[in-house]
Formats: sequence, C-alpha cells, structure tokens
Amino acid sequence: MKPAIQRVPRVGILLLSLGFSSMALAADPLPSWNDGAAKQSIVRFVEGVTREGSPDFVPVPERIATFDNDGTLWAEQPLYAQLFFLMDRVKAMAPQHPEWKTQEPFATVLKGDPRGITAGGEAGVAALLTATHSGMTTDEFSRSVSDWISTAKHPKTGQPFTAMVYKPMLELLDYLRANGFKTFIVSGGGIEFMRPWAEKVYGIPPEQVIGSSGGLQFGMKDGRPALTKLPNLVLNDDKEGKPVGIQRHIGRRPIAAFGNSDGDLQMLQWTCYAPGLRLCLFVHHTDGAREWAYDRTSHIGKLDQGLDEADVRDWTVVDMKKDWKKVFAFE
Amino acid sequence: MKPAIQRVPRVGILLLSLGFSSMALAADPLPSWNDGAAKQSIVRFVEGVTREGSPDFVPVPERIATFDNDGTLWAEQPLYAQLFFLMDRVKAMAPQHPEWKTQEPFATVLKGDPRGITAGGEAGVAALLTATHSGMTTDEFSRSVSDWISTAKHPKTGQPFTAMVYKPMLELLDYLRANGFKTFIVSGGGIEFMRPWAEKVYGIPPEQVIGSSGGLQFGMKDGRPALTKLPNLVLNDDKEGKPVGIQRHIGRRPIAAFGNSDGDLQMLQWTCYAPGLRLCLFVHHTDGAREWAYDRTSHIGKLDQGLDEADVRDWTVVDMKKDWKKVFAFE
Repeated sequence: MKPAIQRVPRVGILLLSLGFSSMALAADPLPSWNDGAAKQSIVRFVEGVTREGSPDFVPVPERIATFDNDGTLWAEQPLYAQLFFLMDRVKAMAPQHPEWKTQEPFATVLKGDPRGITAGGEAGVAALLTATHSGMTTDEFSRSVSDWISTAKHPKTGQPFTAMVYKPMLELLDYLRANGFKTFIVSGGGIEFMRPWAEKVYGIPPEQVIGSSGGLQFGMKDGRPALTKLPNLVLNDDKEGKPVGIQRHIGRRPIAAFGNSDGDLQMLQWTCYAPGLRLCLFVHHTDGAREWAYDRTSHIGKLDQGLDEADVRDWTVVDMKKDWKKVFAFE
Repeated sequence: MKPAIQRVPRVGILLLSLGFSSMALAADPLPSWNDGAAKQSIVRFVEGVTREGSPDFVPVPERIATFDNDGTLWAEQPLYAQLFFLMDRVKAMAPQHPEWKTQEPFATVLKGDPRGITAGGEAGVAALLTATHSGMTTDEFSRSVSDWISTAKHPKTGQPFTAMVYKPMLELLDYLRANGFKTFIVSGGGIEFMRPWAEKVYGIPPEQVIGSSGGLQFGMKDGRPALTKLPNLVLNDDKEGKPVGIQRHIGRRPIAAFGNSDGDLQMLQWTCYAPGLRLCLFVHHTDGAREWAYDRTSHIGKLDQGLDEADVRDWTVVDMKKDWKKVFAFE
C-alpha cells in the first residue's frame, strides 16, 4: 500500500481512515503486463487473499510466495548465468593450476568452449563445481560473485547479467510485497551464488534465498572464525528438492509459486494441491524475438509435464510474447 | 518505536519530527531486568547500532539477532522438553509396537524412566529419534507436536512447557524487534519440533527458526503431495553446526547472539569476532531457587569454555539471580 500512499498522500490517508483500500486509487501495479487472462488471474488472487472477511482471506504471516530464478526472474539462455561465472572462475584460477591446460574438462573450458562444462557428464560438472565453488571461505566466495556480477556481460545482449531480469516479474514481486507477501527465491542455482546480489536486484534478502547448497565447515582461520565451502551437496534444490528446500527453510507452504520449467513442477504441486485460493504460474518462453522461444524439447528450462499439468489443473501460463509489454527494462 | 508512539501519540510524533528518539519517552522496555551491567550492555548496544550517523549504526536489513532456545529462551532442566515429548510419543506409539515392551531402549522409556533415553548411548538415542521423529509426514509430525505442547506439563512446576519461557528474554525479543531487528532461533533442538509453537510463544515465524534437521522426501500420498521425514540428519545445529546453520538459513552474520551453554560458543564467536559494535550474551543459570543453578559440570547446558571466553572477550554474562526481577511470568 505504500506506493499508493506516496502518490496521493492526503486522499490516500483519508480514504484509509474511512476504511477504503488505497489500492483502488493506485496506478496499475503491473504496467508491463498486457490485460489478459494471466494478469487477471494474478490480480484476482491477490485481491482474494487480502480481502478481510472474504473466505479466501489469508493472514499476512502466511502470505508466502516462492519464485524460481533462472528463466522465471531472469534469462537462462544460452546458458545459466552461474555457468558463465564458473567458466570465468576457471580462467581466473588457471594460473594456480597449470595442469588444467591439458586436463579435461578444464582444458575445453579454458578454450572458452562452454561444451566443456557438460562434455564430461556429471563427473565433469562435479569436478568443475568442486574446483570453483569449494575450498574457499563463504566470505571469499561471496566477494568473487560480487566482483563478477558487477562486471560480466551477457554474451548475446552485452548487458550486465543483472539487467537480464524480467521487468514484469520485478513488478509482480513489488505488487506481492505491497500486499503483505514475503517473497522467496527457490532455485536450482547455488544459494551462495544468488545471495550477494538478490537483495539489490530483486529486493529479496539473503535469508529469503533458497538454492542448491553445499556443506560448510566451521573453524578458525588466522585467529578468526571462518566457514569453508565443502564440495558435498546438502540440497539439490530442483524438482523434488524444491518442496524439501521450502520446508527446510520456510517451514510452511507457499500460497503462490512461480516457475518456468519442469524443475518447478513439484514446487507448484506442493503449493496448489491444497485447499483455499492459491496461485500457480508458469512463465512460458514464447518470444524468440525479444527473448528466447523454447519449451518441451529444450535442454535448458524444459517445460513439458508442467504445461500438461497446468492445462489439467487450470494453472496460469504466461505467454511472454502476448502477456508482456516489455521483457527487459533496457529494451 | 511503535510502543512509544502508541503510548504518547502526539508528543511522540512531535518529538520524532523534531529529531528526538521516541525511545527516551517510552516506558522501560526491559521491566523484568534489574539495572546492572547486563541490562546496560544490551541498551548501549541497541542504542549504538540504531543511532543514525553514529559510526556503530547498522542498517535495518543487517540487524540480525540469533537466540539459542533450550536454557536461553526457556528452561531445559531436568531434561530438554523435546525429550519429554519423545517419551510421550514412545508411550503413544507403543500399542503399535508390542515388541518395545522387551526391547531397549524402549522398554525403560515405557516404564517412565528417562534414563532409558541415554542408557543405550548414541545408538539408543538414534533408535528413539528414528522411531518417534521419522516415517511420518511433516504435517502429521507438526500436529503431534501441537497436540502435545497444548497439554503436556512440566514435571517440576506443573506448568505447560510454553509457560517455562523466561519473561526477561521475551522482553528482550520484543525490544530488539521494536528496534528493527529480525530475531531468529538457532537451536540444537529439532527444527520441526519448535516451529509449531515458536510464533505464538516467541513471535518468531517458522522461517526464522533454525534447528537440527533431518532429511525429507517428497512424494505423492493418497493423490496429494507430501513430505516424509527421514531418519538421517542434514544439520546437527549445535556447536560448530550453529554458524553452519546460520549461514545456510540466513546467509549473513548476526550482530547479536544469545546463548547459555558451550553449545552456543561458536555462534557467539561467529557473531562477535567481527569489526563493529556487537552483542554476545550468555544466560548464566545461577538461581537454584526460582530456576536451576548449573554451569561448568552440568550434563545439560554445560557452560565452561563459554564462561572463560566471555571473561576474556568481555561478553555479557547474565546472572539470572541478580539480573532478573522475574524468571517466569507465572511466578
């Protein structure tokens, strides 16, 4: 309600004191969304759960909304941003690892060829992740992420990766928070990779970022306590892992969940197979001109079972091409 | 600042607009605390980190405070409350397990003898935890905790366990929150054991409760998604595990930490071995009349290294007998 009050301070406060909702006076909270079924389903849901006395009313503490990150809040093509970070880390660390010049999968990655990441299968990915994402303290890793994200550019658009976020989704985050929601990220990406910038970019503080997580070891380092990142995985926050991450970190069910791929299906099931008004939404990548067009057969962000289930269960599917006036703020 | 404004609305708003802090006008926010070094250190810390322009100022999002639970927020003698819950669960489940009548450690526990819990060593405790804390869904477990906590009585005082919370600590939680702090529980106790009642008793929502956690498995059960509790431990949230839990769940360092035993020492180190104004505090159980008196040699809540380090590093040590006017609200 704050934005509304700021816009029309006197009238807003007056009407609030008379019991009117100030939202009715506010400018459209979702200006980058075209009017259509998707936008309507969002507004209908938010108005339903916030209307006091309505059978759909949900108290503020239970207004939990969870968002996938890659492909839902920012672009995930041609590769997840974290994989570009990984490749840049391999290059930055290479001088300390002369053996990588001939050792796969490092050698291919060092040639700038992203196929090196997956060429070695799961073992190759694990070796790359272990080398670049473990062995350092959490503070050191966080600094390397912050340094990278402030300078790295997306290979297709030349924009900073943090400009590759979807404007309509930023508006949706704001709209939900203005209506008493707590917004969480629930991503297959690394928790420590997202936290250093999620607060600035999405307004989501570190304690509301859930992601795939590795082990940590506490100990003294140069007389000060430190947490060292270990290579083992304690949460694979994808598919069945998403409801697990939600329960572990939040401890109650979301009433709204947003994803874009089959990796988000279980999170949406966990959210919407429940009594009461709920919102489950898939972002469908249909805009090959402004973004990328992909779904059932994509090797990144595959959306197949999810589309079928959305159809059966009447979940919201956003058609990026039709539903979004703007995709990126820089357009 | 809200309580102050509510008490003296016009003068408070006037002074606020003149730049005065409304806290000065407020009634004592810690009425159950005697004036003394402990109370002064708390107030000095809060005033320091909230004073804009001060070198000690900390922005609201970084005002993270973490509290141990057993022995810090509520009584942990003669046994952790969760162990009374465990014994009651064994009794409740016994009809489905006739073999427990002769099988240890269950047989001893069924006789009402708490020594049964530890008599079998770690393997015995693990067997009891597996039987009572895994195999059911998170919803079922949560219900069993809620049912238990609403009826069970403390064996010494006859009070509900939720009345065994320390009034001065409830005031401290409120005081910190009124000053922009986000308060978290970081306990060796089970995360799923604390969440069903922590919001009502402490004002701490489930997503701000961190505790020892077991594995979870997502699957469909009777056509609905369910999370089943597994017997494996994914976080032993004690000692070195506390900073690990803090990083995993919160992702930034607290600026204030509160404990009562050596199990909290690493959490306090992680919090206070850092530049800037910090508050680390041990509750020292010195009141054998109103509560219990124990420290260096206790088998529950042992506080030995912690006392030494608090002395060396000038951390706050609360002498329950001298510093607290009241221990429990029911006194």
